[in-house]
Amino acid sequence: MEGFSDAIFAIAITLLVLDLHIPDNETLTSTAAILNYLKGQWPSYLAISISFFSIYIMWVSHHKLFKQINVRNTGITFANGLILFLVTAVSYPTGLIARFFDTPSANLVVAIYTGLFILINLSFNLLWYIASRDRTLLRPDISEADIKKIQLNYIYGLPAYCLAFGLSFNFPTIALIICVILWIYWAITSRKLDHEQNESQNK
Amino acid sequence: MEGFSDAIFAIAITLLVLDLHIPDNETLTSTAAILNYLKGQWPSYLAISISFFSIYIMWVSHHKLFKQINVRNTGITFANGLILFLVTAVSYPTGLIARFFDTPSANLVVAIYTGLFILINLSFNLLWYIASRDRTLLRPDISEADIKKIQLNYIYGLPAYCLAFGLSFNFPTIALIICVILWIYWAITSRKLDHEQNESQNK
Amino acid sequence: MEGFSDAIFAIAITLLVLDLHIPDNETLTSTAAILNYLKGQWPSYLAISISFFSIYIMWVSHHKLFKQINVRNTGITFANGLILFLVTAVSYPTGLIARFFDTPSANLVVAIYTGLFILINLSFNLLWYIASRDRTLLRPDISEADIKKIQLNYIYGLPAYCLAFGLSFNFPTIALIICVILWIYWAITSRKLDHEQNESQNK
Amino acid sequence: MEGFSDAIFAIAITLLVLDLHIPDNETLTSTAAILNYLKGQWPSYLAISISFFSIYIMWVSHHKLFKQINVRNTGITFANGLILFLVTAVSYPTGLIARFFDTPSANLVVAIYTGLFILINLSFNLLWYIASRDRTLLRPDISEADIKKIQLNYIYGLPAYCLAFGLSFNFPTIALIICVILWIYWAITSRKLDHEQNESQNK
Repeated sequence: MEGFSDAIFAIAITLLVLDLHIPDNETLTSTAAILNYLKGQWPSYLAISISFFSIYIMWVSHHKLFKQINVRNTGITFANGLILFLVTAVSYPTGLIARFFDTPSANLVVAIYTGLFILINLSFNLLWYIASRDRTLLRPDISEADIKKIQLNYIYGLPAYCLAFGLSFNFPTIALIICVILWIYWAITSRKLDHEQNESQNK
Repeated sequence: MEGFSDAIFAIAITLLVLDLHIPDNETLTSTAAILNYLKGQWPSYLAISISFFSIYIMWVSHHKLFKQINVRNTGITFANGLILFLVTAVSYPTGLIARFFDTPSANLVVAIYTGLFILINLSFNLLWYIASRDRTLLRPDISEADIKKIQLNYIYGLPAYCLAFGLSFNFPTIALIICVILWIYWAITSRKLDHEQNESQNK
Repeated sequence: MEGFSDAIFAIAITLLVLDLHIPDNETLTSTAAILNYLKGQWPSYLAISISFFSIYIMWVSHHKLFKQINVRNTGITFANGLILFLVTAVSYPTGLIARFFDTPSANLVVAIYTGLFILINLSFNLLWYIASRDRTLLRPDISEADIKKIQLNYIYGLPAYCLAFGLSFNFPTIALIICVILWIYWAITSRKLDHEQNESQNK
Repeated sequence: MEGFSDAIFAIAITLLVLDLHIPDNETLTSTAAILNYLKGQWPSYLAISISFFSIYIMWVSHHKLFKQINVRNTGITFANGLILFLVTAVSYPTGLIARFFDTPSANLVVAIYTGLFILINLSFNLLWYIASRDRTLLRPDISEADIKKIQLNYIYGLPAYCLAFGLSFNFPTIALIICVILWIYWAITSRKLDHEQNESQNK
């Protein structure tokens, strides 16, 4: 299950670059024109960078979650399928942002983008809810505090994404910034969890 | 063999999203026009969702099958190749449904789609027939009842897919619903199998 | 090294299906027209099927080869890179056959196709030459007869592919048939090798 | 972490071939025209070959690096993410070289290409800087000399790539040749490292 999920994350993250279009060598005949074209693609670079690191952080998070799960039941298989489905879908709103972020429709495409991350957050919450409800599914030595910490970590994401979604209709740039801040937050808190796990291993 | 098959399933499932086309920012200049375009793509969302979860269930099923197989011979290698070939092909009729499900040609594309699943079902049956015919290929502790149960599980799929195929010429929507019901059935029966395996492990 | 190679084989084999193009729903408005379009794509189905099973057989062969190799040196890394490079390239002549096999240029595209397989055969021979030259690189219990058998198996492929290449300029269909016969031969001989390995394991 | 990184390298390396475009069978009606088209694509063959072996060498290098690292912290996760991000991006400047290397804009696209490899080199240096700064992250039996050798190996790449970048504005072909020489150098030095590791294992 983990190997299969890892492969899907890896493919989804690598396909993002396909959103970059190589200009035509018949219409762009001067170096200045090519440079201009490449500069004009900045929404693509922005969208791909944000989506790459978001999927990367989600993979780190997903990997850590599955380390806590010893036994899989149908509920976990289904919730995991939902996460994977939504992760593979990220490339589409990424492409929309790449194409429309510098148009007056930026609010619509950022709303779709943040809306997808709300769904991903909900499916992560669902996975952990199903897994932590039945303690026989988790690794035996997990502490009650760790279960709670993971749960809170995902639940805190929900209002943040909803805020980003709400703001996207008027302030799409701020909505994207909230997403980036959220991923930096998860990157840092994932470090803290690491540290504690190492400590508990050393005891 | 399993790692290679898993990778092919993972890639086939992730490539489905490439059927979604990003609208052109020169022809669609208003937010309403983009929203309209995105709404008009509902056959794509439908086709991709159904195909994603169908491949996902097939992967779960394939994974479970290969857990029962200890030794591989040429027959298994060939039957597995056939399954993988047909699984990678799923994206094509998915794309046809995405493009033509809201046209008068819906019956044709759904017939092709369900026809492909008949072939996939036959190749799963072939794989299990080859594997279960020679008990030295299976894991030693598998029970006769489990072998029979797996066999019936795949064989039951055949008339259901044939029914879907037959109905698709007049009622394409009902044919797709039969496919979805079949996958839900397999998701639930896969749980029961899990449960029994855990029971036998606990003894 | 094996996991990485397997992944490249898996991706190369799955990308083949991207050669199939979904017809446009604006130009094809009747079911008959779609059916006609799909029938007209038979060179694509032919090319993809042949390439799929050829890469599949090559993967089986590659997998078997690396089971014999215990230690990797730069030569093996380079020869393996060459194989992987040529395997990822298969999709391009496959696409050429798909597009041009039913045109008067069939001989050119089949010549390119068989020419690529000559190169792949040479790189497999190179890999086994480098590996078998220094016995400390192989698994210790491999017999001299097995080393010879693997070597002959690859070397026999060379004149067969050269024959197919030569014939392709006048009889492209016969050239493709030779390729298919060759893969069936390898599939069968790979079984024999399996059998012997099992026997030696049982002793 | 390694399996996930390997998968991304494998996908990035395989997607390169998508830069090759299959000619249209309606505009190219004679064998001579197809042959001419295929000959005209030589910048694509050049770009894909160079990028394939560059990613391949980087994968070998990355694999070797992660064998030295026992424990991962957030810094390593982030630096690794940066490497993977830049590796997936290689296909874009590869496509630019494929399209523009035989135009007067060759200098621009080669500058972008070599510029990306400067960034990849910097991120490899960053990864090893973070890993080697805290010796508890490395495998316990690594020698001080090996740490230094790896560090120098990456650091030497920086001025070479900067030279290639600087030359690309006037001599794009020479800039590409420097890249190729650099990869051959790394392929050879990676052999030497292998040899020494084997020696230390034998002691």
